[in-house]
Amino acid sequence: MIKVGIVGFRGYSGAELERLLGGHPQVTAYRLEHRQDTEHRAEPIGRVATPSIACTAPAAVAEGVDVVFLATPVEVSIDLSLEFLAAGIRVIDLSGAFRLGTLENFARWYPEEHKAPQLLAEAVYGLPEFYRLKVAGARVVSNPGCYPTAANLAIRPLIEARIVNRNAGIVCDAKSGVTGAGRKPSLKTSFSEVNENFSAYSIQKHRHVPEVLMTSGLEESEFSFTAHLLPVNRGILETIYLRTVNVASAERILEIYQAQYQNERFVRLYRPGTVPDLFSVTHTNFCDIGFQFDPPSGRLTVVAAIDNLVKGAAGQAIQNMNILMGFDEAEGLL
Amino acid sequence: MIKVGIVGFRGYSGAELERLLGGHPQVTAYRLEHRQDTEHRAEPIGRVATPSIACTAPAAVAEGVDVVFLATPVEVSIDLSLEFLAAGIRVIDLSGAFRLGTLENFARWYPEEHKAPQLLAEAVYGLPEFYRLKVAGARVVSNPGCYPTAANLAIRPLIEARIVNRNAGIVCDAKSGVTGAGRKPSLKTSFSEVNENFSAYSIQKHRHVPEVLMTSGLEESEFSFTAHLLPVNRGILETIYLRTVNVASAERILEIYQAQYQNERFVRLYRPGTVPDLFSVTHTNFCDIGFQFDPPSGRLTVVAAIDNLVKGAAGQAIQNMNILMGFDEAEGLL
Amino acid sequence: MIKVGIVGFRGYSGAELERLLGGHPQVTAYRLEHRQDTEHRAEPIGRVATPSIACTAPAAVAEGVDVVFLATPVEVSIDLSLEFLAAGIRVIDLSGAFRLGTLENFARWYPEEHKAPQLLAEAVYGLPEFYRLKVAGARVVSNPGCYPTAANLAIRPLIEARIVNRNAGIVCDAKSGVTGAGRKPSLKTSFSEVNENFSAYSIQKHRHVPEVLMTSGLEESEFSFTAHLLPVNRGILETIYLRTVNVASAERILEIYQAQYQNERFVRLYRPGTVPDLFSVTHTNFCDIGFQFDPPSGRLTVVAAIDNLVKGAAGQAIQNMNILMGFDEAEGLL
Amino acid sequence: MIKVGIVGFRGYSGAELERLLGGHPQVTAYRLEHRQDTEHRAEPIGRVATPSIACTAPAAVAEGVDVVFLATPVEVSIDLSLEFLAAGIRVIDLSGAFRLGTLENFARWYPEEHKAPQLLAEAVYGLPEFYRLKVAGARVVSNPGCYPTAANLAIRPLIEARIVNRNAGIVCDAKSGVTGAGRKPSLKTSFSEVNENFSAYSIQKHRHVPEVLMTSGLEESEFSFTAHLLPVNRGILETIYLRTVNVASAERILEIYQAQYQNERFVRLYRPGTVPDLFSVTHTNFCDIGFQFDPPSGRLTVVAAIDNLVKGAAGQAIQNMNILMGFDEAEGLL
Repeated sequence: MIKVGIVGFRGYSGAELERLLGGHPQVTAYRLEHRQDTEHRAEPIGRVATPSIACTAPAAVAEGVDVVFLATPVEVSIDLSLEFLAAGIRVIDLSGAFRLGTLENFARWYPEEHKAPQLLAEAVYGLPEFYRLKVAGARVVSNPGCYPTAANLAIRPLIEARIVNRNAGIVCDAKSGVTGAGRKPSLKTSFSEVNENFSAYSIQKHRHVPEVLMTSGLEESEFSFTAHLLPVNRGILETIYLRTVNVASAERILEIYQAQYQNERFVRLYRPGTVPDLFSVTHTNFCDIGFQFDPPSGRLTVVAAIDNLVKGAAGQAIQNMNILMGFDEAEGLL
Repeated sequence: MIKVGIVGFRGYSGAELERLLGGHPQVTAYRLEHRQDTEHRAEPIGRVATPSIACTAPAAVAEGVDVVFLATPVEVSIDLSLEFLAAGIRVIDLSGAFRLGTLENFARWYPEEHKAPQLLAEAVYGLPEFYRLKVAGARVVSNPGCYPTAANLAIRPLIEARIVNRNAGIVCDAKSGVTGAGRKPSLKTSFSEVNENFSAYSIQKHRHVPEVLMTSGLEESEFSFTAHLLPVNRGILETIYLRTVNVASAERILEIYQAQYQNERFVRLYRPGTVPDLFSVTHTNFCDIGFQFDPPSGRLTVVAAIDNLVKGAAGQAIQNMNILMGFDEAEGLL
Repeated sequence: MIKVGIVGFRGYSGAELERLLGGHPQVTAYRLEHRQDTEHRAEPIGRVATPSIACTAPAAVAEGVDVVFLATPVEVSIDLSLEFLAAGIRVIDLSGAFRLGTLENFARWYPEEHKAPQLLAEAVYGLPEFYRLKVAGARVVSNPGCYPTAANLAIRPLIEARIVNRNAGIVCDAKSGVTGAGRKPSLKTSFSEVNENFSAYSIQKHRHVPEVLMTSGLEESEFSFTAHLLPVNRGILETIYLRTVNVASAERILEIYQAQYQNERFVRLYRPGTVPDLFSVTHTNFCDIGFQFDPPSGRLTVVAAIDNLVKGAAGQAIQNMNILMGFDEAEGLL
Repeated sequence: MIKVGIVGFRGYSGAELERLLGGHPQVTAYRLEHRQDTEHRAEPIGRVATPSIACTAPAAVAEGVDVVFLATPVEVSIDLSLEFLAAGIRVIDLSGAFRLGTLENFARWYPEEHKAPQLLAEAVYGLPEFYRLKVAGARVVSNPGCYPTAANLAIRPLIEARIVNRNAGIVCDAKSGVTGAGRKPSLKTSFSEVNENFSAYSIQKHRHVPEVLMTSGLEESEFSFTAHLLPVNRGILETIYLRTVNVASAERILEIYQAQYQNERFVRLYRPGTVPDLFSVTHTNFCDIGFQFDPPSGRLTVVAAIDNLVKGAAGQAIQNMNILMGFDEAEGLL
């Protein structure tokens, strides 16, 4: 039985962490109160809430907290990581603060200043399907972005199998539910602006792009990415287009994916010609992958779906915690 | 051909005013720039926008503006009304600033201070179906709230016909789309808080209640009102419950409504046992009214529907302007 | 460990039963294949489905099935109940086939013929909070309708406490998500007819009304009910209006509810002046109840919310099964 | 003043035709009653409906109908086209019956048999921006599919300007609102299956693909198309990816589009780096086009948006009728 703290429990990812950890048999969760906010929704009398302590290293140490989840903005994550790590508490950070490996790479994609470049180098990128062993020994795990989680799981096996015509480029057309934009009110995520609407944003420039490049091995010039805002609460669906070289049949592509994922508990494959939709994965930690292939032309269209708050955030963070603490990797997630 | 100004054209009611006035054959509309805001959505090249001038009385006078629409918060409406009226420009105000007749009544329902109590007394409540003659000569028209527009059109004819058992009370269960809450970002109207949700608010205490009391003649103790937030962009549907006295048939109720509304262009009635839904009225200036009646018990259930941005705001404001300026009352609204 | 069968597992209530029973530690569930249907959504390779057997009494007996859930239309439920009961298998029926006690009452509200009037008399109405002891020994449990579940939990304690002015009547304005209408395609539940729309239906005539009358003790003439179709997938919210007699304070009303529900695991109360919304209850078996009270006028507005597929159908059916089989009443439901 | 008939006025495209033609100053519209259907929604008393006649050539001739719009399934369109053309009435068909030029091409993409191959050859493909002159003299106009309308307007100018690296292929990731699937109830378009979901369908195989190939000049092997079902009522947004050759700047791309569309009333362009969303075009006949370009890599991402029921169906059909009858092309459409 371990103790974990959640910072940012009022946000959507933080609330999902609290909800999922509430069902984890080896964890006692604490809310780390970082800001006082008022809630607009009422609660029933006598609701037993997660216990709450101050969001400081001394308070967490006093309580015996082993791991802290940071569901916070980049700057806050940097500050708090320094503080908790100094106190010997391991950190799983859900922001983009530590994903990009080097200060140069970070500065290229993020406007924020970075106070802890040494942690950029140290942090392990927590995509368990590819970096499981590194996660096991990490002090600080950088939980992947939601879009790159689906994109990398769909793309990397094909790149590694050397069946992609990289000259033709890879297109990733990504659509996300609105919780992916966080809980802070803004005109862009107001109901009457999003409902019955659909829009593309951050075309070619989304700060999740470098995560795909780092994990898949693609060059930026080879990869075209567009994010879109879907009028749904949860879920990401990515439609990925590429051209193959030397692939005779859809079965060959399925074999490549099966060879990669046969022992994975959270990646599910579909028969050629069939694909997942959002309902296949919402409220689960699965990444579902299906595809349509046209052998004569080599046109391959892959559809990958995840729940942005689970496999794309809180679920994957718990998967990383399970690895970190030596628990069964799926504990609390099925 | 007259000139009109719109203050608050970035809000939902103001934008609807601009859109509707763009199709009005006897009006040139101007945006009165009150605040500088940035927009998050792009516009096509060469889009011919409504001309824009400063939101001051001198600028409006210089341009020859005859009428100003205020789609602004209560305090702003009070300040601007004083300024424009002093310059001889007529005002149609869409806020709650001037609806309640007396300072006492205003103070009972609104937290704001009121700097212009004389305008409270002077302003004409612009529900044309009942106060058309007064609107015709007004300097300042107070456009009704969205909820009271539907409620009063449904309730008042029954009260006047003396068929309501007032001891049993009247219930108005009202549901509104999210544009009714305005465009200012807030957690309460964020997409992920509203979508797939449904909530009651301001139970028994909504500040639109006194408008129903004033127009229908009901006492507060006789009237139960609950507002609800519907996960749709537009539309209000109110389900109204009362018990009749001395009514033998549904046809009698239909006759009462028909006697009241036979010459009205924006009130439509339904056969007994059939009722409108939101699609009956969205994007129109109609108020649609239908009902179900059970003669033995006297239980009468009335359903009234409007578009909150049209008959509940911008459309009714233009209807009032048409009356004020001697145009055909339906000009630009069909 | 018991074995249970689910008929109608492709419908929304049946699918929710299968999902919830998958997490019940004392149950092995079987799909009883009653009709062959094709699905339009794909499934991942190797998905371990619930085992499937023929929907006949011999097949169920051979498999050792103890209880069958019928998530089927009224006529199918009548036929299958006769068959399974004859084979000694207990039945929990989610349709309206056995809720109304007598053939007369059934004939008044349902168009279907009833082949098994003896079961109408025998079936126990499975609202555990009021009929728990009867459920314990039943051969056939009739699971309540979704609307009456929330209405009865909100209304009956007030009636029993004799604080309701019944002359003034009780109004129940009910709104339901679209899964409540079942999964069979129809124009009324097509996306483009429901989305951005909102409509009232079955005004004063809904066949769930008699369930409220039977459990609450109200007369039909005292009760006004309107159902509305909300553009959301799940959830029911009911706004209930009545006038009290001899109640001095909101605390008195809270006491009445607390006296009734203090030991209930699935009814939650809110502080006076605060109420639940759909998000309070969706994906749970809770019925949440809050209210606003005005002592001078006696106007009481109660808001009750449930998930129509859980407390309003599958969850309550499992709660009944738990009682029937002597399990902890909340097993598999928290 | 001409007389036009609408077949299929109960469907979404037909209803939009009726609505738009109601505001067209040079047209009297008739409903041609082809099937008797019941409606589930009520109508106000005294609503003046479009006049209705039998859907036969003699009835239409007797009434003096000049043009018939067919908003019907493929087989019905073929039968009715033969009948009305034989009677000297011009036909604007909104189905896919006559879009593909030859019987071979039709047979490759459509399962239906084709009884009128001569009309396949004769029919003019009614995309006015490219085939305006041919439309002017046509007996039968085949109104384009919704997806190809946006795709062709976005792609063809770039192909003609020879700036596309066709070896790398063009990707069109298309998303449509649910009215695009028609009004016939089906599980795929049921509210609870679509709402909060998002899905890809007809990957690489959509029968709208050949319309893009025919108009743009692309080969099938060069073009990857995926359709997606968006949980909104109206609107299509297509994100189109290609790689350029010999293009130094975004301005060059804008020039190409401006050269093509400078005199077009229904195509609007956006400044480089900005793109339309659905709200830019819903309830209008515009096709809005914006793009993001990366000169070093040649990656070009174009976003095109239309209202599937207006520019994608009824609006474009009226635009074609205006051309056919010598009216101003924008009559009734602004």
